Amino acid sequence: VALFEAVYGSAPVEAATDDDAWLRAMLQVQRAIAVAGSRVGLIPPDAAAAIAAATEQDDRFDLAAIGRSAGVHATPVIELVNQLRAVLPSSVAGSVQLAATSQDVLDTAAMLVCRRALAPAGADAEALAELLAALAAEHRSTPILGRTLLQPALPTSFGAVCAARLVAVDEALVGLRTVVADRLAVQLGGAVGTLGPAGDRGPALLAQVAAELGLVEPVLPWHTARGRVGQLAAAIGVLAGELAGAAQDVVLLAGLAEVAEAAPGRSSSMPAKQNPARAVLALACAHRVPGLVATLLAGLPQELQRAAGRWQAEAGTLTELLRLLGGTAGHTRAAYEGLQVDPAAMARHLEQAGISLSGNGSDPEVDGRLSSELSPELGSAPVFVDRALAAHAAVTSAAAQPKEGAQ
Amino acid sequence: VALFEAVYGSAPVEAATDDDAWLRAMLQVQRAIAVAGSRVGLIPPDAAAAIAAATEQDDRFDLAAIGRSAGVHATPVIELVNQLRAVLPSSVAGSVQLAATSQDVLDTAAMLVCRRALAPAGADAEALAELLAALAAEHRSTPILGRTLLQPALPTSFGAVCAARLVAVDEALVGLRTVVADRLAVQLGGAVGTLGPAGDRGPALLAQVAAELGLVEPVLPWHTARGRVGQLAAAIGVLAGELAGAAQDVVLLAGLAEVAEAAPGRSSSMPAKQNPARAVLALACAHRVPGLVATLLAGLPQELQRAAGRWQAEAGTLTELLRLLGGTAGHTRAAYEGLQVDPAAMARHLEQAGISLSGNGSDPEVDGRLSSELSPELGSAPVFVDRALAAHAAVTSAAAQPKEGAQ
Amino acid sequence: VALFEAVYGSAPVEAATDDDAWLRAMLQVQRAIAVAGSRVGLIPPDAAAAIAAATEQDDRFDLAAIGRSAGVHATPVIELVNQLRAVLPSSVAGSVQLAATSQDVLDTAAMLVCRRALAPAGADAEALAELLAALAAEHRSTPILGRTLLQPALPTSFGAVCAARLVAVDEALVGLRTVVADRLAVQLGGAVGTLGPAGDRGPALLAQVAAELGLVEPVLPWHTARGRVGQLAAAIGVLAGELAGAAQDVVLLAGLAEVAEAAPGRSSSMPAKQNPARAVLALACAHRVPGLVATLLAGLPQELQRAAGRWQAEAGTLTELLRLLGGTAGHTRAAYEGLQVDPAAMARHLEQAGISLSGNGSDPEVDGRLSSELSPELGSAPVFVDRALAAHAAVTSAAAQPKEGAQ
Amino acid sequence: VALFEAVYGSAPVEAATDDDAWLRAMLQVQRAIAVAGSRVGLIPPDAAAAIAAATEQDDRFDLAAIGRSAGVHATPVIELVNQLRAVLPSSVAGSVQLAATSQDVLDTAAMLVCRRALAPAGADAEALAELLAALAAEHRSTPILGRTLLQPALPTSFGAVCAARLVAVDEALVGLRTVVADRLAVQLGGAVGTLGPAGDRGPALLAQVAAELGLVEPVLPWHTARGRVGQLAAAIGVLAGELAGAAQDVVLLAGLAEVAEAAPGRSSSMPAKQNPARAVLALACAHRVPGLVATLLAGLPQELQRAAGRWQAEAGTLTELLRLLGGTAGHTRAAYEGLQVDPAAMARHLEQAGISLSGNGSDPEVDGRLSSELSPELGSAPVFVDRALAAHAAVTSAAAQPKEGAQ
Repeated sequence: VALFEAVYGSAPVEAATDDDAWLRAMLQVQRAIAVAGSRVGLIPPDAAAAIAAATEQDDRFDLAAIGRSAGVHATPVIELVNQLRAVLPSSVAGSVQLAATSQDVLDTAAMLVCRRALAPAGADAEALAELLAALAAEHRSTPILGRTLLQPALPTSFGAVCAARLVAVDEALVGLRTVVADRLAVQLGGAVGTLGPAGDRGPALLAQVAAELGLVEPVLPWHTARGRVGQLAAAIGVLAGELAGAAQDVVLLAGLAEVAEAAPGRSSSMPAKQNPARAVLALACAHRVPGLVATLLAGLPQELQRAAGRWQAEAGTLTELLRLLGGTAGHTRAAYEGLQVDPAAMARHLEQAGISLSGNGSDPEVDGRLSSELSPELGSAPVFVDRALAAHAAVTSAAAQPKEGAQ
Repeated sequence: VALFEAVYGSAPVEAATDDDAWLRAMLQVQRAIAVAGSRVGLIPPDAAAAIAAATEQDDRFDLAAIGRSAGVHATPVIELVNQLRAVLPSSVAGSVQLAATSQDVLDTAAMLVCRRALAPAGADAEALAELLAALAAEHRSTPILGRTLLQPALPTSFGAVCAARLVAVDEALVGLRTVVADRLAVQLGGAVGTLGPAGDRGPALLAQVAAELGLVEPVLPWHTARGRVGQLAAAIGVLAGELAGAAQDVVLLAGLAEVAEAAPGRSSSMPAKQNPARAVLALACAHRVPGLVATLLAGLPQELQRAAGRWQAEAGTLTELLRLLGGTAGHTRAAYEGLQVDPAAMARHLEQAGISLSGNGSDPEVDGRLSSELSPELGSAPVFVDRALAAHAAVTSAAAQPKEGAQ
Repeated sequence: VALFEAVYGSAPVEAATDDDAWLRAMLQVQRAIAVAGSRVGLIPPDAAAAIAAATEQDDRFDLAAIGRSAGVHATPVIELVNQLRAVLPSSVAGSVQLAATSQDVLDTAAMLVCRRALAPAGADAEALAELLAALAAEHRSTPILGRTLLQPALPTSFGAVCAARLVAVDEALVGLRTVVADRLAVQLGGAVGTLGPAGDRGPALLAQVAAELGLVEPVLPWHTARGRVGQLAAAIGVLAGELAGAAQDVVLLAGLAEVAEAAPGRSSSMPAKQNPARAVLALACAHRVPGLVATLLAGLPQELQRAAGRWQAEAGTLTELLRLLGGTAGHTRAAYEGLQVDPAAMARHLEQAGISLSGNGSDPEVDGRLSSELSPELGSAPVFVDRALAAHAAVTSAAAQPKEGAQ
Repeated sequence: VALFEAVYGSAPVEAATDDDAWLRAMLQVQRAIAVAGSRVGLIPPDAAAAIAAATEQDDRFDLAAIGRSAGVHATPVIELVNQLRAVLPSSVAGSVQLAATSQDVLDTAAMLVCRRALAPAGADAEALAELLAALAAEHRSTPILGRTLLQPALPTSFGAVCAARLVAVDEALVGLRTVVADRLAVQLGGAVGTLGPAGDRGPALLAQVAAELGLVEPVLPWHTARGRVGQLAAAIGVLAGELAGAAQDVVLLAGLAEVAEAAPGRSSSMPAKQNPARAVLALACAHRVPGLVATLLAGLPQELQRAAGRWQAEAGTLTELLRLLGGTAGHTRAAYEGLQVDPAAMARHLEQAGISLSGNGSDPEVDGRLSSELSPELGSAPVFVDRALAAHAAVTSAAAQPKEGAQ
């Protein structure tokens, strides 16, 4: 663990986005191009097999040399190909990367890295959703003083507070899943997007690479049309923002002693202090996200057949974005894991605000009678909890369906 | 037309986002709440009719007074309600805004404003797509020197260049349409999201208002869960970015005298100069977009039951965003309208780069034979054009289907 | 007042940045060029006088036509010059704008607009600083519970809280004043920055225009070197952020009932509610600022002799930025104007946190004895107040010195 | 070298911002606090000496454990202090960190890290300025076709093009140096900014720590007043933007074959291609900067006595910012190092644009006669070069003066 790694990320996302992960992804793309190339008859099966075998041995590659070369040629792929060719018989070396250009390899690798990194980040967000759902159900009618503009307002239920965050996270997850399923596409166009060296087998090669990697087959190369990168970034940004909304509730309610993290953070100068440290870390991670999304969106209008700068800015920004989503999701989940809820404190604050509820503040009914009949001051809060739980069940069930192209 | 209005916007989007548009939208929301309230039995039909009638007369409202009040109370709705009540019989005045709070009215109005402003902006983008499709078809095999990192590279076809932008704009439009159809939702929750004053008729009221306005019915109020605003902003950001990509091609190719705008801009100090002014203006508008998207995404983690600042920042940012999308779409469309394409200049530049094509650079075949057979150096460029046109036809046809909830 | 004008701005800044303000500034630049041109012998004094006279009559200009032209030619200056020439004798018309290009006029006008708009915004920030200074002095030793990560921590004094914001605002003001004094420069370079038509009198012309307008004379034209715009934007961003820090204290302490705005905002659904509306509006304005600063910074690398898009994006962004600073400053000042401070509530919260102070919580000493001797738990808080007040006096006194070039 | 390290940074800045650099900086702060504490009599000299000795041995600290703890407690300092105390006699352990809190240590360490990282980044920028100055002098009157909106316009000199970038970089460097000298301050306030445990020796302790570290002594603690961080970020943003302006000239002029990098980048699919790779990498680095500046500016309004999220977001963002400035400066410098300039190509393009110069396009005069007398079409371009060189000499000489507090 590096110094700030656990602050700004989560272990599994870190592992899915580190140098080795990028290297493996680039090699996997080389492998897929070779295999696809042999399927469409551009190279002999033997050559493809040799390339595939070589790409499996990612520990034979000199990552530092690739990195240095990237700092000179503005792409890591030139030296990657050099090293790949160096371990192949000379008769096969020419079959490496076929009709593809550097950007094809790096873009497709980026899609693979994104898919892999989003899995654990998404899993943390899903786990958080389950925690929120459980709290929403348990506290369906637990009265809490609603605060607007941070001022005391009127009563709602703590379950409804959690339900609102549940729906927000679920809907953001749906958005992200849609992008992952529909927009993570193979890049393959060659030097200027014509797949020239593939002759008339360009489209077939493209289709085969897509099939091989389980990525979407694009209509045509998207070297300077980066909408899918923007959409991915935006979906990450929205999810991070909604997660942060849940984290912020913890921070604010912990400040009022209505909730507490199960394992609060300590202070170096106030030993007795119990900080909502994980929720604070989630806010810190999420705070860094919108600027990165803007960086990627600002990079959209790329020049002619290959951008001079905006494209080269993407890989680092995407890596940061994935890690920060991992951190936001991981920390928010941790903040809610075992969250200590204090209904008595909530009741006391209602009382101090001069609000008395006609119901008893608990939700003892098991026969489905609305607790709001007991505490009409809660309005539709319990009903909204029910709606949120039903929507959550539907979202969860849809997510469980196998997706085409997933891997 | 104000000084910078035509620079940073388009006339129809301006009209759909100006003060009157916001006022009318807020009044329409009040009307919908009243009508819905009478349908679910919260107020008498007479009261609803009186409110509805009053809200039709938007010229009776004192917009300046509403604006001044907004600068004091942090919402324009308090004074709007005052003025609305003032023109109603006192027996009806109490029926205004029912269980709703200010934010309900302004949020729902914002959704209406967005939908209305996105229509003409989208229409300009669609018109641009048609222009790109026509250019792609016409220049399917017109050779052009591809440029990577702005350096001369290898040949492609000008049609393929246009086709790549066509697909980008189409896919961004699909993304925006999805958000408009699925995510523009009614806001209705009352002071703390419980719809308390509506008793057990809260959910029914919510459903009726949604039906009345043709907006999505949310699972529950989203006062501090702003994912849909973020998704909308992001979809605008992606479309603006892809439009700017198309505009940038014009700027760069105009600099090489391969294309020219039909009505170029002039220079005050160089009378003979012909500037790709509309493409430049499109880039200017699009340049301003990512920062606004970041502002809205940064506003996502809102506090408890109503945010203290981040929510109040949205209306102005959304208005700017809509206008700038309008400007980006309008200017890019204008840049391509009647675009002068000079295949001879393109051919000359290929020649200067030492590239000779075996084909004749035109695309005379009408029997479907690939022109790349004539000019194999173009690789799959013509095929990619065909794929793009087919995809465009599919997107256009899908967009023509009536959408639920559209209005 | 337009619908959102009082929300996102202040009246004087609005007036200093509206269409008329921009028109007047552009005309003032034309006047300065003419006057300077006659001084260095490029045009006859009569011509300069005629131009100067014509530019005084800004009501004779058709702003809408200028705006429409700007939407076609990507600059308002072409039509502005047309209209200016139309009211001049033909013998004089050719003397308009001399060696200058459109960008020279608009850039220099932007500098004038910025200077004018920053005066009232700065005045509001200065008035806020005075209010903070008064509160710091009055509550030098008023105990308040310090909160870290929004959790109760240890005692400090409310005066020290205000003193920290005072220093922050003062230092940000110093930064802004430095930029205004040192970096608001004339732009004058002609078509490609050589001042070609001025022959060997280019530098003299530049110096005269700078003197005429009281702006800095740049080393050379800065058509595509926009550092000063970035520095200005950043200084605005820092001041807005520090102002928002002060506003956020009001929101948070009002939520704890330790302070209240003198004229709180109302709620449409909770008549009894007292919202810290002005502080919330300040936060809303400030929230919109960083995205705009990023837009201007992202616009810095401009192309060769005139940018294709990034420059054209500046005027609108600057206008927004100035207005939002005006709003942030105006609202924060209003939030503190007559701020109700409740030392008893502060004392109660300390007590509830189990903290008892050995002093009496007031600051009765007039002979200079530190109140922290009375309440040692306050540590150096009172001393820091004293330091802040001394620093404030120094800053205020420095600001009162006449600046070269100010006007 | 990690995979993307040489793309997005420079070796010396990387070294100055890596985990060890942060660890050493935090230990240095602990040392300074101890030493200062003994000077003002808060701890015995022996204790200070023991602490100082322990902090020198940074290889005894378990960085991974500190990192893991940071991910739990939202600060690395708690575990750092644990480890520091573990190697000290128990009698001394209590003297560690004295009146300081975690944030004091991390903030002050951040200032040290910034100062150290900015030195090599600044040195690269200064070296670039020298290269620009040399090109400006050499090509003072070398005619080049000026391009506005990327269209051919009128002649200027290549020296003037370089001079404009020189002035831009110099002025941005001045801005950055000012921030480094005036705004990098010690943070020392203890839990809530009162330096409570230091009794009445708080201010003396603060002064001593500042003296010890050569940092500015602030008026009072700035735990939630982050203007200096914003100013630092902005100064970095402006410098990165101006450097990118210079890099963009290389990219654009290389596209026209008027200049070429001395060691161009290669392409994986076009072996003959010569890419302006370093200039492209500079643009990529700089593109990532504005979003990070916005993140830090958006973090300015921090809450009460310690922020809940925005502060914790700073360290990672600052680290990225410093590295990207290093990359921008390093790559831009490399792009200009040995830049190949082709005056004949420049002359040819002027000719193709129908522009003939009356001078001979060279600058043979050594007696100070303006070459613009030879080529009057260049206007004041050569004079502006002279002004830029004079300004550069002044800036360089001022920078060479020893600064107080520098170290």
